[in-house]
Amino acid sequence: MAYNISTMCYIKVLMFLGLHYAAVLCNGGVTSSYVRKSEPSVDMPFEQFPSPPGFNAPEQVHITQGDHVGRSMIISWVTPIKPHPNEVTYWEETNGKHSHKHKTSARITSYRYYNYTSGYIHHATITRLKYNTRYIYELGKHNTTRRFYFTTPPEVGPDVPYTFGVMGDLGQTYDSNQTFEHYVSNQKGQAVLFVGDLSYADHYEFHDNRRWDNWARFLEKSVAYQPWIWTAGNHEIDYAPEIEENTPFRPYMHRYHVPYKASQSTSPLWYSIKRASAYIIVLSSYSAYGKYTPQYNWLEQEFPKVNRAETPWLIVLLHSPWYNSNNYHYMEGESMRVIFEPWFVQNKVDIVFAGHVHSYERSERISNIKYNITNNLSSPVKDASAPVYITIGDAGNIEGLADSFSEPQPSYSAFREASFGHAILEIKNRTRAFYTWHRNHDNEPIAADSTWFYNRYWYPHEEPKFTKN
Amino acid sequence: MAYNISTMCYIKVLMFLGLHYAAVLCNGGVTSSYVRKSEPSVDMPFEQFPSPPGFNAPEQVHITQGDHVGRSMIISWVTPIKPHPNEVTYWEETNGKHSHKHKTSARITSYRYYNYTSGYIHHATITRLKYNTRYIYELGKHNTTRRFYFTTPPEVGPDVPYTFGVMGDLGQTYDSNQTFEHYVSNQKGQAVLFVGDLSYADHYEFHDNRRWDNWARFLEKSVAYQPWIWTAGNHEIDYAPEIEENTPFRPYMHRYHVPYKASQSTSPLWYSIKRASAYIIVLSSYSAYGKYTPQYNWLEQEFPKVNRAETPWLIVLLHSPWYNSNNYHYMEGESMRVIFEPWFVQNKVDIVFAGHVHSYERSERISNIKYNITNNLSSPVKDASAPVYITIGDAGNIEGLADSFSEPQPSYSAFREASFGHAILEIKNRTRAFYTWHRNHDNEPIAADSTWFYNRYWYPHEEPKFTKN
Repeated sequence: MAYNISTMCYIKVLMFLGLHYAAVLCNGGVTSSYVRKSEPSVDMPFEQFPSPPGFNAPEQVHITQGDHVGRSMIISWVTPIKPHPNEVTYWEETNGKHSHKHKTSARITSYRYYNYTSGYIHHATITRLKYNTRYIYELGKHNTTRRFYFTTPPEVGPDVPYTFGVMGDLGQTYDSNQTFEHYVSNQKGQAVLFVGDLSYADHYEFHDNRRWDNWARFLEKSVAYQPWIWTAGNHEIDYAPEIEENTPFRPYMHRYHVPYKASQSTSPLWYSIKRASAYIIVLSSYSAYGKYTPQYNWLEQEFPKVNRAETPWLIVLLHSPWYNSNNYHYMEGESMRVIFEPWFVQNKVDIVFAGHVHSYERSERISNIKYNITNNLSSPVKDASAPVYITIGDAGNIEGLADSFSEPQPSYSAFREASFGHAILEIKNRTRAFYTWHRNHDNEPIAADSTWFYNRYWYPHEEPKFTKN
Repeated sequence: MAYNISTMCYIKVLMFLGLHYAAVLCNGGVTSSYVRKSEPSVDMPFEQFPSPPGFNAPEQVHITQGDHVGRSMIISWVTPIKPHPNEVTYWEETNGKHSHKHKTSARITSYRYYNYTSGYIHHATITRLKYNTRYIYELGKHNTTRRFYFTTPPEVGPDVPYTFGVMGDLGQTYDSNQTFEHYVSNQKGQAVLFVGDLSYADHYEFHDNRRWDNWARFLEKSVAYQPWIWTAGNHEIDYAPEIEENTPFRPYMHRYHVPYKASQSTSPLWYSIKRASAYIIVLSSYSAYGKYTPQYNWLEQEFPKVNRAETPWLIVLLHSPWYNSNNYHYMEGESMRVIFEPWFVQNKVDIVFAGHVHSYERSERISNIKYNITNNLSSPVKDASAPVYITIGDAGNIEGLADSFSEPQPSYSAFREASFGHAILEIKNRTRAFYTWHRNHDNEPIAADSTWFYNRYWYPHEEPKFTKN
């Protein structure tokens, strides 16, 4: 291990679950000095994730919540050659007892992007599901039939435990694979909060959209079985005027449908869902958010709808972080922060998850909303009503880790480390949630960062800095 | 007159052109105490601006620059009943000598908006015009023929004098009419820089789009004869999900075409033109402007294209002001300012015109770009490379004047007054431009605010605070 110590910092050996590691503590915050093996960020080859066998077999299967409360599911898949079969058959798992089978047809879409033509992209919304129930679903027919399953969430309520995985900036490199396998193997996560930057297809010439297909095949073994809640990142924009691709978000919006109308949104780029005891608001860092714009108007009307007696946990997902002490993408979130932060504090948002920076960082509960241009009050200050900001754009990507932090560590930063990983948020009840961040180079039970979050509405006390479960 | 004096201010009697008025001076800036007759802001009735006589007569004629350099013009008009005739006939004015007549067909569009159906909206771009030449053009046929004229600008060059009118937030009230008549009667303006909020049709139930038609008839006597350069304001959004009108800017974009493709823009909401010695950049306060978005990418590539040896005057138009010391819309421009201001200073923008606030204000040359979250450097400071910011959203609107200024007047504010009016920017050569603001209640020759602007590239010296021509 190597230490890079500024005058304001000192080394401390921390112990979690019997394992030691050194951390550089600055201004109270921790800059982890964990040093990982340096590996190239290289995409896995296409051959790694072939299409399933059989003519026109359904592939790239993924599911996401299909309504506002969790009683519907959007089932999406691609048939490469022809649009049919176009039905999803699904039934309740009943351990041998007879269960009535239902069928729902999908809406079919497809698109061209420069020299690429997509397969037939199917989106079927299956509705009126029972809560907390395991369903089987089938796609394809005859020898291409494929079967999957999922479990619906419990009914929305204030003390319903629920566990989310959290990832951002995944991509399809070997690192992505490690993060993904790590998440899948922990088996705790019941749904994923994904904070944007999915396939990184735009890394390639002409934004090679086959990488969108490959990414969806890569993820299938999780996202066909549990819903991932999508946020759009900058790599979803796919704006390329040099090849006359002038409509932002076109591949993403064709491929990843979300239940935006259920929250009175007029765009799939911002929406909300309730799930168990959580109210999740998804925002778009790359759409208009100025006053009077659709996203601004929507969010203004959205906050008053959140009933903390029903959903105590108010969580926001967005791509470009507001509090980031990494030199990469430093202050890129300012433009949205200055307009929305007062609402976040006023409405006591519990946690904001962001991606974009290929590193991990957790903030203190701070706000910076007193500034009026002439008063110089422009420093983040401790604020018990403020969210914790977590930057977790460290799932894999293809651009490498963002390993250059600003020094000294600013006081708003509680913990930061440039490692790949994912997080788990275990909501226990209306007052407490246990949160862990898992770096890829550790075994799954090890949490490189962990803390209890206390609910801002029901129990707005100061949390311990680091906690064991 | 009534004075409202804070401890930091004092009254001074200023004299311009032989007329006295009292001003409250604070921190060096002036808050004018001019007190105007209070009149209701009421829209003029539809009968005031009837359609021209004759079946299907062309109406709502307006022109704007049609290319990047001023050798094309977009001629737009509406035929209410049927799409034809669809041609514009035009020729060079030659004082009796024979002049060859040209014909160009228009693209025709129309739209529905809730319970409104537009007429046939024609947009014809006439090209390859001579510089500095007067053209006649004709629309309609037989007894509905209507004839107009315009003068093309001089060829783009560094010392070409040119005079722009400047207006924002016009609307169609009796106040709007005063401003408009005032501008028309001064006869100096060769083209108008319009900083957004055109018709205020959205003030009415279902955004009564007949008000868009009426507004275009109201303006015809100027805008059919000289180009107005358009900027979109919040009243152009016409976003109304309650009546399923979910596409922002639809009426505006159908009615007001701009030459955005000539500046490699992919949206009519942001673009640039050169005209005489000025380079005009138009931005959209209500579109996405975050990093990686189309507008951001475009502007990043746009600044390096500005050649000050060709167009010394770099002027930006946008709707929501960055520096505004009025309590109305205070700090609404922050979200865009924090992301774009460094570019404006680095590229030595001369003047930024904004609207939105129904009042008049001129800033000092200041910038506020040192802030890095942790350093507390968040106050506007004097900066010789910074633009002057002019808020001129005081042309009429329907919401009344914004007459509540923050006290004391912040040091970044040079002059402010809550009166209706318009401005004239007289570019003299590469180093100097004379600027005057004319309040409606004065006779035209009186300038309620006036100053010389020194070009930031060729003569970046400090300007006098107030100047006579």
